[in-house]
Amino acid sequence: MNLKQLAKELNLSISAVSKALRDSHEISPATKALVLAKAKELNYQVNPFASSLRKQISKTIAVVIPEVVNDFFGPCINGIESIAQEKGYHVLIYLTHEDMQREIAITKLLQNGRADGVIVSMSETTNNTNHFEELKNLEVPLVFFDRVAELMDAPKVITDDYHSGKVATAHLLENGCKRIAFLSISNSLSISNKRMNGYLDAISENNLKRDNSLMLWFTNDYATNAGMIRNLLTKKNRPDGIFASVEHLAITAYEICAELGLNIPGDVKIICFSNLKTAGLLYPSMTTITQPAYEMGREAASILFKLVEKKGHHFLQEKTVIPSRLVIRNSTRVV
Amino acid sequence: MNLKQLAKELNLSISAVSKALRDSHEISPATKALVLAKAKELNYQVNPFASSLRKQISKTIAVVIPEVVNDFFGPCINGIESIAQEKGYHVLIYLTHEDMQREIAITKLLQNGRADGVIVSMSETTNNTNHFEELKNLEVPLVFFDRVAELMDAPKVITDDYHSGKVATAHLLENGCKRIAFLSISNSLSISNKRMNGYLDAISENNLKRDNSLMLWFTNDYATNAGMIRNLLTKKNRPDGIFASVEHLAITAYEICAELGLNIPGDVKIICFSNLKTAGLLYPSMTTITQPAYEMGREAASILFKLVEKKGHHFLQEKTVIPSRLVIRNSTRVV
Repeated sequence: MNLKQLAKELNLSISAVSKALRDSHEISPATKALVLAKAKELNYQVNPFASSLRKQISKTIAVVIPEVVNDFFGPCINGIESIAQEKGYHVLIYLTHEDMQREIAITKLLQNGRADGVIVSMSETTNNTNHFEELKNLEVPLVFFDRVAELMDAPKVITDDYHSGKVATAHLLENGCKRIAFLSISNSLSISNKRMNGYLDAISENNLKRDNSLMLWFTNDYATNAGMIRNLLTKKNRPDGIFASVEHLAITAYEICAELGLNIPGDVKIICFSNLKTAGLLYPSMTTITQPAYEMGREAASILFKLVEKKGHHFLQEKTVIPSRLVIRNSTRVV
Repeated sequence: MNLKQLAKELNLSISAVSKALRDSHEISPATKALVLAKAKELNYQVNPFASSLRKQISKTIAVVIPEVVNDFFGPCINGIESIAQEKGYHVLIYLTHEDMQREIAITKLLQNGRADGVIVSMSETTNNTNHFEELKNLEVPLVFFDRVAELMDAPKVITDDYHSGKVATAHLLENGCKRIAFLSISNSLSISNKRMNGYLDAISENNLKRDNSLMLWFTNDYATNAGMIRNLLTKKNRPDGIFASVEHLAITAYEICAELGLNIPGDVKIICFSNLKTAGLLYPSMTTITQPAYEMGREAASILFKLVEKKGHHFLQEKTVIPSRLVIRNSTRVV
């Protein structure tokens, strides 16, 4: 299927179809919709030459992430920008706010050649990857980082979530914890499952029994989350250790401990995945699994530019793993 | 000067000039450069109708800010996005990394109709506003927030930096400080000067003498900044209070106090402009001037959409002031 055949199918001129596909203002929205629908139906691929012409113009890459009020994605962006600047490219940032529908709308925008390549960390509500497959089919170079689409043939840059989950749990066990709660945000993201599996394997390797009442999945609503943690910490058989797979749950746990008069680390020890700049200044200072955020951003961008510059497709199935570090502070101290 | 005249001057077809101005891939980079240079020379204004056609397509606003590894700009973006979503617009984020040259390059990109409107918080190295004037001359709706171009006729959304600077200093004075250091990052940004003037007026209204050795301007380099604060806190006549006009300087001061064994608030009290989520969990919890970041973002976006929707130009000279709040915690406690 080429542009000529597509135009014939649509009974339109080649020029009109081409303009419609480029989202030209000379074409009415109704006609554009018609052309796009037919192109999709007939699985029409955008001409790679046209795409390469477009490339010369935009000199822009897009980054699609859940949020920026976050100590992880900020340094990731800085890592991405450090590479983009070397290459003379601009970086556009789009936020999904953890909403799959917004993520889909953004990938539609990016189908129009606004960017020469796209770096993605998926929203926690994303439960299929059709919208990313569509981008890929349009030959838009695509790299995932951190929250990756496990089953897609696209380069992925991740940290060692399973191993780090195990290390975090083992650290609490070594320091005397017997009942460790696992706090997480989603069971559809692969990183959450990997961290959980690390937790579960550390538990079973230490001959402890899995206790499902200690595994909690949280929402995006602060008050709901605070209530769940309050319940957890006031029940008769409360945990003596908390492993939070995301930072904000650990911060909330700190607040609830202060409210309930529970001593950290005396009554409950806390560890979490976190890139919080002030982790060392908290009371008590917080033990963290610190992710290589800046390095992950740099690596994702480096791979993307190899794709943009068409230096081979052997990256497509590549998975780059950059390890996280355990940083031991006072919140897990033996007292 | 209209498109026809411009085309005649260039000895090109109207269509070619129009495509060049729209950065079409059908036009060579050399021709585009020629067209843009001539358009600028003859002060050619983009046809508002063409711009409004473009608008229908892009449904995008751009936000140009210094950085995202920051507790202030994150919530600002969320405020902006909350309004943009109501309007069905996408938000693009561009980072200047406090570099005026990057800021200029970004505004050049935005001249090509990539966005229907632009919200800006200036880089700290920006010492003129020609690049913003150019955008404005192309009738791209423009709103400033927080770090605003004081002298430009464009809507501005700010907080009460002068008043808050005075409130912060007066709070330290009331709690017994006699030698208050003022830490800031730049003396070209209007917000820095306003906070400093608030500091100076509070000092003089309390019949204390201004001491220039207590007023320090910092860099973007962490090690340099830490060295400067170490010097400040080890000198014979060290300050008994610190007012940091930006958050990261207060965090560094916390770290240096820990290193030197100085007690906060016993030896030195600390207050800063900050939206740090963990301010209340630090040791000691930190007294802050908390800016209405989310609200400032919402307000800037609301005004921008009025401009985009051409609901009058009476906003152009408007300055909206949303007050900050003093949040008293332990770092300034009387001991």
